Amino acid sequence: MLVRGAPLIGATAAYGMCLGLGQGASDADIDRIAGTLIACRPTAVNLRWAVQRMSEALLSVQEDDRIKAAYAEAGKICEEDVAVNEAIGTHGLKCIEEAWKRKGEDGEVRILTHCNAGWLATVDWGTAMAPVYKAHEAGIPVHVWVDETRPRSQGASLTAWELGAQGIAHSLIVDNAGGHLMQHGQVDLCIVGTDRTTATGDVCNKIGTYLKALAARDNSVPFYVALPGSTIDWTMDNGFEIPIEERSPDEVLWVSGKTRDGRLEEVRIAPKGTPAANPAFDVTPSSLVTGLITERGVCPASREGLENLYPEMG
Amino acid sequence: MLVRGAPLIGATAAYGMCLGLGQGASDADIDRIAGTLIACRPTAVNLRWAVQRMSEALLSVQEDDRIKAAYAEAGKICEEDVAVNEAIGTHGLKCIEEAWKRKGEDGEVRILTHCNAGWLATVDWGTAMAPVYKAHEAGIPVHVWVDETRPRSQGASLTAWELGAQGIAHSLIVDNAGGHLMQHGQVDLCIVGTDRTTATGDVCNKIGTYLKALAARDNSVPFYVALPGSTIDWTMDNGFEIPIEERSPDEVLWVSGKTRDGRLEEVRIAPKGTPAANPAFDVTPSSLVTGLITERGVCPASREGLENLYPEMG
Repeated sequence: MLVRGAPLIGATAAYGMCLGLGQGASDADIDRIAGTLIACRPTAVNLRWAVQRMSEALLSVQEDDRIKAAYAEAGKICEEDVAVNEAIGTHGLKCIEEAWKRKGEDGEVRILTHCNAGWLATVDWGTAMAPVYKAHEAGIPVHVWVDETRPRSQGASLTAWELGAQGIAHSLIVDNAGGHLMQHGQVDLCIVGTDRTTATGDVCNKIGTYLKALAARDNSVPFYVALPGSTIDWTMDNGFEIPIEERSPDEVLWVSGKTRDGRLEEVRIAPKGTPAANPAFDVTPSSLVTGLITERGVCPASREGLENLYPEMG
Repeated sequence: MLVRGAPLIGATAAYGMCLGLGQGASDADIDRIAGTLIACRPTAVNLRWAVQRMSEALLSVQEDDRIKAAYAEAGKICEEDVAVNEAIGTHGLKCIEEAWKRKGEDGEVRILTHCNAGWLATVDWGTAMAPVYKAHEAGIPVHVWVDETRPRSQGASLTAWELGAQGIAHSLIVDNAGGHLMQHGQVDLCIVGTDRTTATGDVCNKIGTYLKALAARDNSVPFYVALPGSTIDWTMDNGFEIPIEERSPDEVLWVSGKTRDGRLEEVRIAPKGTPAANPAFDVTPSSLVTGLITERGVCPASREGLENLYPEMG
């Protein structure tokens, strides 16, 4: 978890391949390094995607040229990530513009997001936050409801910080609050990222995403998922087959932050010895998703929708 | 928030009336004390119920006898609370027995709860936890999924502690996790408490309850609400009319707990200056509630259901 965010995990794994080659660049070495990297995290599919792309590029050149080729390919992955995310922003902007028009261009467009899918989770722009940044640039007044996102509180520590740095209005809320806000007409749309999306449009994302998608449906709030094509797992039809990382109970039991005198400190929020369970992701069925915002456009969360945008994968 | 838990708020307010009378016991004094107490918290209706019951009892006796009468009536409220909660446990036990039979009496009955509605929230037994304690006594193996319940983490600090003291198997989970557990068949039923239930069965409870009720419906998990009759607001037909307490942003921004060396400490989980919103309760519409567990039995969450059990209020 030194690196997090599906696209950033992919980009970092690409440079992991570069570093690994320093100890040997044979075909067997490439297989070994790739295996080690893929085993690091089970849920985000970009990891596998980036490692496989690197492996293919490396195996196609002579052993002596592989380190140079690796850095070149990793660089390309990063540059593409920036372009892909900016394109997600451009397409997603339309969803925010629609919400703005529905409101008669009055007040502000209030967008709920979960976890962090901004530029801290990618090489630049972010996925779910890219449309928000494009809307801000376009002069649409936006306000982001930032889900805290327990247990690791990426919303509180990363998204709130990123939005603050970007000068975008936002309010931190506990993960429990989004449903109430939607019931009271305080959310115009939701945009979240994803760690893996199936070929049928089921969306795996940070734990708790599913609950917000349920509330969005119950209150007719559009629920969008922003993702680069590399996050689609074309080999998988059913989101419930995605392996869900079960992480340490300590993440539930301990919360870290800054004390009043500025020290980083961890505090235990439950009695000593309290058992805890910590599934890290959940799956939102495609039926709860209004649309997938990709670098090629916005499509329905369905096989047909995805294959229309990615005909070469169908 | 030195006192929390709807029934306990009522019982404490009764003794608040006793203490207030020390400074004067005229009819005007009673009105003044009652008004001050009712203004303390807007959401839990037991507060108003207990203060009104005390006022009626006091106004019916001579001024000189009022302090003695107050303590007598407050004592009765407490004794009744214990009996009422035990009766909730006895009726709610049937819901757990049904779940146990549905599972072929195999494994354990896994009950999800939100916030703390145990004996720490009442005079004894609790509301939502009373059926769990009765099931444990009856030899049914139970396991409680304890929602952390941000922002004040009453699940982590109170329910986990209470269940530990009671010797009941439990696991702490973040508020985000319950939907995922229900999707994977890991929750047999939900039982929560309530701060106010309308005459039509809408349920106001700690923020986040609504999200769990949505997930329960989506996964056909029974969702019960346990409550004493004093929590029913017979004057209200629509849960969305219930005033929702908006509490300090600091509750969202700061988390308190114990450091590794045993000190109580508060840590800030978001960048300095991050704005936060903090609605404390939400409303679960009656359509999402499988049944209301009261001291008089279990009934549908509807006007008809409630009036059948409380015909004198209809």
